[in-house]
Amino acid sequence: MKTNKNNTGWIRHVSITPPTLQNNTADADRLIGELKSKLDTDAVDIDLYLLKRLPDLLRRCEYNVDCILFKDRKRWLVTGITHPQDTSPIYGLAVDLGTTRIVLRLIDLSTGRIPAETSFDNPQISAGPDILTRIHFADQDGGLNRLNKMIIDGLNRMIIKLCDSCKIKPHNIYSLSVAGNTAMTHLFMGLSPHWIIREPYIPVINRPGLVKAEELGIKVNPAARVLIFPNVGSYFGGDLIAGILFSGLNKTEDTAILVDVGTNAEVVLGNRHWLIACAGAAGPALECGVTGIGMMAGPGVVDRVAIDHDTYNIQLHTIDNMPPKGICGSGLIDLAAHLFLCGMIDIKGKILPSICGSILKEKEGIRHLVVVPAIDSATGSDLTISQAEIDILIRSKAAMYTILETVTSSVGISFNDLSTFYVAGTFGSFINPRSAISIGMLPDLPIDRYKSLGNSSIGGATMALTSSECLDEIDKIRDSVTYLELNVNQEFMNRFSAAGFLPHTDPSLFRSVKVCARISPPHKPLAAG
Amino acid sequence: MKTNKNNTGWIRHVSITPPTLQNNTADADRLIGELKSKLDTDAVDIDLYLLKRLPDLLRRCEYNVDCILFKDRKRWLVTGITHPQDTSPIYGLAVDLGTTRIVLRLIDLSTGRIPAETSFDNPQISAGPDILTRIHFADQDGGLNRLNKMIIDGLNRMIIKLCDSCKIKPHNIYSLSVAGNTAMTHLFMGLSPHWIIREPYIPVINRPGLVKAEELGIKVNPAARVLIFPNVGSYFGGDLIAGILFSGLNKTEDTAILVDVGTNAEVVLGNRHWLIACAGAAGPALECGVTGIGMMAGPGVVDRVAIDHDTYNIQLHTIDNMPPKGICGSGLIDLAAHLFLCGMIDIKGKILPSICGSILKEKEGIRHLVVVPAIDSATGSDLTISQAEIDILIRSKAAMYTILETVTSSVGISFNDLSTFYVAGTFGSFINPRSAISIGMLPDLPIDRYKSLGNSSIGGATMALTSSECLDEIDKIRDSVTYLELNVNQEFMNRFSAAGFLPHTDPSLFRSVKVCARISPPHKPLAAG
Repeated sequence: MKTNKNNTGWIRHVSITPPTLQNNTADADRLIGELKSKLDTDAVDIDLYLLKRLPDLLRRCEYNVDCILFKDRKRWLVTGITHPQDTSPIYGLAVDLGTTRIVLRLIDLSTGRIPAETSFDNPQISAGPDILTRIHFADQDGGLNRLNKMIIDGLNRMIIKLCDSCKIKPHNIYSLSVAGNTAMTHLFMGLSPHWIIREPYIPVINRPGLVKAEELGIKVNPAARVLIFPNVGSYFGGDLIAGILFSGLNKTEDTAILVDVGTNAEVVLGNRHWLIACAGAAGPALECGVTGIGMMAGPGVVDRVAIDHDTYNIQLHTIDNMPPKGICGSGLIDLAAHLFLCGMIDIKGKILPSICGSILKEKEGIRHLVVVPAIDSATGSDLTISQAEIDILIRSKAAMYTILETVTSSVGISFNDLSTFYVAGTFGSFINPRSAISIGMLPDLPIDRYKSLGNSSIGGATMALTSSECLDEIDKIRDSVTYLELNVNQEFMNRFSAAGFLPHTDPSLFRSVKVCARISPPHKPLAAG
Repeated sequence: MKTNKNNTGWIRHVSITPPTLQNNTADADRLIGELKSKLDTDAVDIDLYLLKRLPDLLRRCEYNVDCILFKDRKRWLVTGITHPQDTSPIYGLAVDLGTTRIVLRLIDLSTGRIPAETSFDNPQISAGPDILTRIHFADQDGGLNRLNKMIIDGLNRMIIKLCDSCKIKPHNIYSLSVAGNTAMTHLFMGLSPHWIIREPYIPVINRPGLVKAEELGIKVNPAARVLIFPNVGSYFGGDLIAGILFSGLNKTEDTAILVDVGTNAEVVLGNRHWLIACAGAAGPALECGVTGIGMMAGPGVVDRVAIDHDTYNIQLHTIDNMPPKGICGSGLIDLAAHLFLCGMIDIKGKILPSICGSILKEKEGIRHLVVVPAIDSATGSDLTISQAEIDILIRSKAAMYTILETVTSSVGISFNDLSTFYVAGTFGSFINPRSAISIGMLPDLPIDRYKSLGNSSIGGATMALTSSECLDEIDKIRDSVTYLELNVNQEFMNRFSAAGFLPHTDPSLFRSVKVCARISPPHKPLAAG
């Protein structure tokens, strides 16, 4: 016997009155009638695949069955019908369709529990590391089909692996939810992303709703449906809608903000009454660092940095404690923050040779700071950060801060009015808010107002499969978002210029940031720690 | 330029405002929004197949397109989107899914015109001539799949032929409507008909609604949908619902009756306020005649008979004027009527040797009447009708009359209250009502109240494709039909016994039937004419 079946509400036990000569309503119509009254709806559909199996099953179960349900706006769909004594697992699959990394998470539809999760590199990386390259690739002859096949085949392979790890079959998956940015969602559906990057930036569809898994080529239960998260536009995708759902921003009386930090800075501000969103290019510096030693998080990548204010000793933490081979965004923000707080770079981000001492090297006329000397690095070469790279980072953090200022001021709210500052994204969860404040990337709020959401896209996709109430929220969120088009006007440029300093030209905005004023080099020689 | 596009209402010209930076709603959502307001609905869906083609098409058409629509209850579906200057034909296909014969009719969705029609023998006949045999065949291993494949493959072959004859492609077919009895509809959908013939006679589904043609294996436009007519039960199928739609019975203030004469006598009585239906076995005698010489209508089959009251000369009409090889139901009814009116058979249907003279033969102790002597027949043998066969015919006509009496009396209506008596079915259209009255098969109403509908099943299926209003009627009709279960109780048996005479034990019910009272043989010897 399955227990706790009704935790998610997707599995409903239905008892129907056996037919008689006096009441000879058909099997399907009898079941639908019962579901309509149970679910208080006037639209319930049963897949043809299930209709073929219904008469025998109903009679074997003596007209007591468990129905597996999903919902497309006002219409409920039966995606599975099982014998109440059948102990086969009934699973859903949440998917975060990341540009770089795809995350799959199994959900037990009986209990809402998560028995397994996996992730894999987006196979489309072979066609282009970033979404822009892929959109151009899609324009080539057969390109769109190839990109679509890469993602669908990749998902099918990983679904088999994930199911194997739980000793279930893909057939046991009855519903899916997929959250991704607008371009990834298009490539997943086989829709052309061509116009997404061309003015006026029009997606093919905003609200894909439910699509049959089979029609998309996803090999799970033949009656399974895929909920595809809606987007607000080309630059505000389903991953963000999932993020809002996951954060609960749309449910609270207090106004809060949600920021997804990546190549694009995506921001949502609001509460249960209204939501305002905007997105703008922040450059890759915040996500995968800068060109020289910057890289995506992974084993041996520096993700946390501290500098001793007395010794100028650089303390590093690498992922999996492997020898350092590069530095990711969170490490870079830490590094910049500490370089600034120690006075090794100035308010403009310029390297101060008098303070930096022996870690300063000059290559081809450009100043570099040695973060990890060759002897300690996994690469056998110095890991360095150049003046140019620091400049790029400062432009990125300035863009981020300017976007945050623009969106809050558009509704006349100050940062201090924000009850919570959600930082989303796998990368975002590693940012030290203290460091981000120190460089003026995030506003100077009490640290406890910052909440890291982790991968909020998979979080929201998971929630969509945990109850029909959550599912209903998705379209509500999508339709309540007002998208603020960023006008790069004079006001924006003024804000951007002011934010191009560490932490800002107006120090009163960052009262908590205290620079260690020093004019002489430290006592000991510098060394990587 | 296509003209009269809007005759059926299925093709709508849609002009949408081109997108701008200020209004960057996605292509599909923009189109759906426009259609929602045009159609005054809150549910419009676009097939994924069309979504893939939408962005290019919209831009090529400068945001002016023709949308091909279909409707599933309250939900509208876009099944095609074309350039307004595109002159490719836009067709629908109506199908009458007969047990014996399948009829296909193309409908120009722009104008409602019917450019072509064809029919073919139901390929399932090879598995069983009647539906009962096929239902048992379906129970065998793989039987259901084979029957399903026969009908689907047969339809696909004929669709190609029909399209070729009109110089169009199956791709030009965007919507289909299919009407058939409940068992045929099940076999068409691949649903088990097993429980249809087993008490309490439960179909798998009453209201199949719209199904994707592709999912059924029908090879037409990939986005095409198939409307499958609903049934009221195992013995009152979609063909009858189509018949009601075609007759307009459900629209008139006056009460009328619709009878489909076949192996089952299917009867609907009612008006725009109510509909009551019943069906009962009448035996095959009325449709394909009796065992000896009876056969389905076809070349060389006698379909009309008259007997000269003076000479007893039998005058025959054969289909296509070919030499006679058998007799179909309408011919048989004529024959029985004239035999009775000439006094050659008595009120019990017994052959009167003294009157029949030389056309009487005795074979194995059973009396036969020679309808066509060997010398005139296509078979080289006498075409005869035996006493036993006449008895079967009388039982069939008695069953029909009893059913008619039962259904009318159930609502306290007399035959004379009926404004119109519709006779449906390909066979029904050949019945001479005068003859049917003479033998007491149909009630003694003024002849002008009888209206032959021809194949009302294909008629209704056609109507379903001519407007959304007609489509909406289908579910209304289905839901307003009260099905009267025929209880073979004492009252029924009394009526059946009374109807077992020619025309009836109560001659006051058939005042127009005048038997030529004669006690001596005719002057001349009998001969087939």
